[in-house]
Amino acid sequence: MGKALITDLYEIKMSYVYFKKGMKDNVAYFDVFYRRIPDNGGYVLYAGLESIIAYVKNFHFEKEEIEFLRKTNEYSEDFLNYLENLKFTGTLYSMKEGSVIFPQEPVLIVKAPIIEAQLLETYLLMLFNHQSLIATKASRIVRAALGRPITEFGARRAHNEDAAMLGTRAAYIGGCLGTSVVEAERLYGIKSYGTMAHSYVQSFDNEFDAFKEFALLYPNNTSLLIDTYDVLKSGLPNAIRVFKEVLEPMGIKKGSVRIDSGDLSYLSNETRKMLDKAGLNYVKIMLTNSLDEYSIQEIIANGADVDLMGVGERLITSSSSPVLDGVYKLSAIEENGKLVDVMKISASPQKTTNPGFKKVYRIYDKETKKAEADLICRSHEVFDNSKPLTLFDPNYTYKTKTFESFEIKELLIKIIEDGKLIYEKPTIDEIKEFAKSELDSMWPEVKRFTLPHEYYVDLSDELYNYKEQKIKEELNESI
Amino acid sequence: MGKALITDLYEIKMSYVYFKKGMKDNVAYFDVFYRRIPDNGGYVLYAGLESIIAYVKNFHFEKEEIEFLRKTNEYSEDFLNYLENLKFTGTLYSMKEGSVIFPQEPVLIVKAPIIEAQLLETYLLMLFNHQSLIATKASRIVRAALGRPITEFGARRAHNEDAAMLGTRAAYIGGCLGTSVVEAERLYGIKSYGTMAHSYVQSFDNEFDAFKEFALLYPNNTSLLIDTYDVLKSGLPNAIRVFKEVLEPMGIKKGSVRIDSGDLSYLSNETRKMLDKAGLNYVKIMLTNSLDEYSIQEIIANGADVDLMGVGERLITSSSSPVLDGVYKLSAIEENGKLVDVMKISASPQKTTNPGFKKVYRIYDKETKKAEADLICRSHEVFDNSKPLTLFDPNYTYKTKTFESFEIKELLIKIIEDGKLIYEKPTIDEIKEFAKSELDSMWPEVKRFTLPHEYYVDLSDELYNYKEQKIKEELNESI
Repeated sequence: MGKALITDLYEIKMSYVYFKKGMKDNVAYFDVFYRRIPDNGGYVLYAGLESIIAYVKNFHFEKEEIEFLRKTNEYSEDFLNYLENLKFTGTLYSMKEGSVIFPQEPVLIVKAPIIEAQLLETYLLMLFNHQSLIATKASRIVRAALGRPITEFGARRAHNEDAAMLGTRAAYIGGCLGTSVVEAERLYGIKSYGTMAHSYVQSFDNEFDAFKEFALLYPNNTSLLIDTYDVLKSGLPNAIRVFKEVLEPMGIKKGSVRIDSGDLSYLSNETRKMLDKAGLNYVKIMLTNSLDEYSIQEIIANGADVDLMGVGERLITSSSSPVLDGVYKLSAIEENGKLVDVMKISASPQKTTNPGFKKVYRIYDKETKKAEADLICRSHEVFDNSKPLTLFDPNYTYKTKTFESFEIKELLIKIIEDGKLIYEKPTIDEIKEFAKSELDSMWPEVKRFTLPHEYYVDLSDELYNYKEQKIKEELNESI
Repeated sequence: MGKALITDLYEIKMSYVYFKKGMKDNVAYFDVFYRRIPDNGGYVLYAGLESIIAYVKNFHFEKEEIEFLRKTNEYSEDFLNYLENLKFTGTLYSMKEGSVIFPQEPVLIVKAPIIEAQLLETYLLMLFNHQSLIATKASRIVRAALGRPITEFGARRAHNEDAAMLGTRAAYIGGCLGTSVVEAERLYGIKSYGTMAHSYVQSFDNEFDAFKEFALLYPNNTSLLIDTYDVLKSGLPNAIRVFKEVLEPMGIKKGSVRIDSGDLSYLSNETRKMLDKAGLNYVKIMLTNSLDEYSIQEIIANGADVDLMGVGERLITSSSSPVLDGVYKLSAIEENGKLVDVMKISASPQKTTNPGFKKVYRIYDKETKKAEADLICRSHEVFDNSKPLTLFDPNYTYKTKTFESFEIKELLIKIIEDGKLIYEKPTIDEIKEFAKSELDSMWPEVKRFTLPHEYYVDLSDELYNYKEQKIKEELNESI
């Protein structure tokens, strides 16, 4: 089945008007951008481009979908025939998957006959919003762990199957070591990890036997869950016996124990001491149980002995901030054969959009290679580092900054041109590597969890003036 | 493709141990229950049973999935052959979809050979957790609206496709009038609704034309978005012209206006006044924009003039509380041919489970028909209303309550027996109706948003004593 009806009804209702009024081939430009950073953070990590490409390239209506629309008696036969043959013939620009992105700047631009562009809105936003949200959350959690590997363990609390699958893919891009979900290894090549449940331990006569059988079957990969009965009195002593009496005699000196309840800080310290005392300093300690960037930062600050962490619901739902508010806004539209730049003017100035087809540049300090600011400009403008560049804050125009020694990079690249994919898709590991380099290029202040520095996203002089002029025009015209 | 690998790796690793140790046919009982009510509310509305039945009935491994497992070199050929022929042969008990459910009580019970039961865990929990979460949130939002219809509009912020589709189904069960998602109408028969976007208005030369063309095409279903430029100066005057000059001359006296930004309370009041003054008291006002039960309660208390509401991200992600913490806990297991009741004893007493195969009763006051308490008991216990029933709080046993005139209903019913579906699935409208009757049977105190009454979930004398005895036994045995 296609996905064309997994969309808001209004996309189809508007499209029918465009069709009936002879507007269907009018070219439209839509910008995808977001407004608010989840968790009051300093950045968002963009994920979802691979899904977006697949969706756009495969966009079509199946016969059953057309039949359903026909039965509503809302649409004419010529419109239904048109939909039946519809595919995407437009052009898609995007930043690279794994990019660090900031509010208000276009991350994707769709240029296409208006019906084609309109019908993509709902699903494309959903892919962008969900996957970028989870990649961002993962990158925060991974950074909080200060180098300790994080595995994504949240499938059972995900908002259903795609949220588990594409969520764990996004978490991997955000820096996770791996996933609990086997299918994510099969489909995406993300290594899956897993130990045992409490029920496993309970299904044996006693805890030692449960541990022993597991170790015998997975000697090179033994991770023992030690909190089914009592971590320090039962689980850990039984685990120590298994490492000493079962694995060491086989010449195997590796493995881990996992603690999933109780005071993780305290229990990890006591566990470390008992393991070391037993000569098992090579046995790693894994912690799980409602972890996120805040609790991880705190238990590490409190001196927990932790080597690995599994993070579940708070990552896979981004539970402390479960929405990314990406929108899809018209910036230009062909009217009577002429391209007209448009904008949405809102009572809330933050919701007023930037008119016209645009570009985005990122400016880096030449010495430190750190990103300093982004610059949104009109599509025909060209910036380079041959002369100093002065930027100003579009909300407080007296705040200016001049860059003398800098590098500058254009961020939006052409992915699909006239319906044809012209972008060579990177592997997931390349995307993950790129995301890491993007985060490395950001000053620590931008990545701070508490009151991060607000990264500069400025408008070019020309775009700023053009926008001011359009606001006056549009307000006069529309009334 | 099947769904058997959309599971945590540990389910497969544990299953392999069970297989290798000759435990695979040992019958196990698993309880599904949750611990914490989202939003600090008073109840959860159960949704997802239909998906769970489909998942369990269709559970199987595809050839490609087996091939993937083979390539990991972790599992023996006899195990892989066993998996290839695996299907669910066990028994599934469940409360009815749409039931009001409370913490700690088993909502589903899976009784099956342990591998079969184990392999269902991750996906089944995901279905239960996600759909019950959204149904619960929807029911809160619908109640806050005091009879005004709520439509689910959040697909673009959903955690991907299944979250949009099964989420909007759950929202409908929770009481929503309809959905924005067309496919939900095609697949589930939930009526879809939609108006227009700001981009639609912008794609015309002027706002009046945009409204007029919409009204001409959808005369019986005209909803005009009036905040693209300025609600009171532009959008509303243009909408009034369309109702007066386009629709009324056609003899049509219905329709609505939608406001999506600004101060919704104030704008709705001014809009109502201007509409009424123009003789358009039949035109309804729809509000959208980051609504949830809290903001709806507040704008209604402040006297907003609102007839309809569309609720997006805060419903489809349950953003103020995006996790339901349902778990899957072993309660009994066959060991050496004998069924042994087990429990997980936790350092956190709230996490200690109830041992053995159980039943749940709900007790209603005979006069008011309101639910008074739930009673969890052992499976062989039988309760009826032939004599008074005294319940006690399992945490504070001195707190007792005696029921004299009551009705009593068993809540868990057999859905699948020995692999065969024996339950006649209700239609979605029957489920929605049942959910409504369930909510109606609860005292208002239980449904309050702020500090709701904690509904009584008690244990029978026998289960309570049995549990206390098991705790002592298990603690001694396991160490």
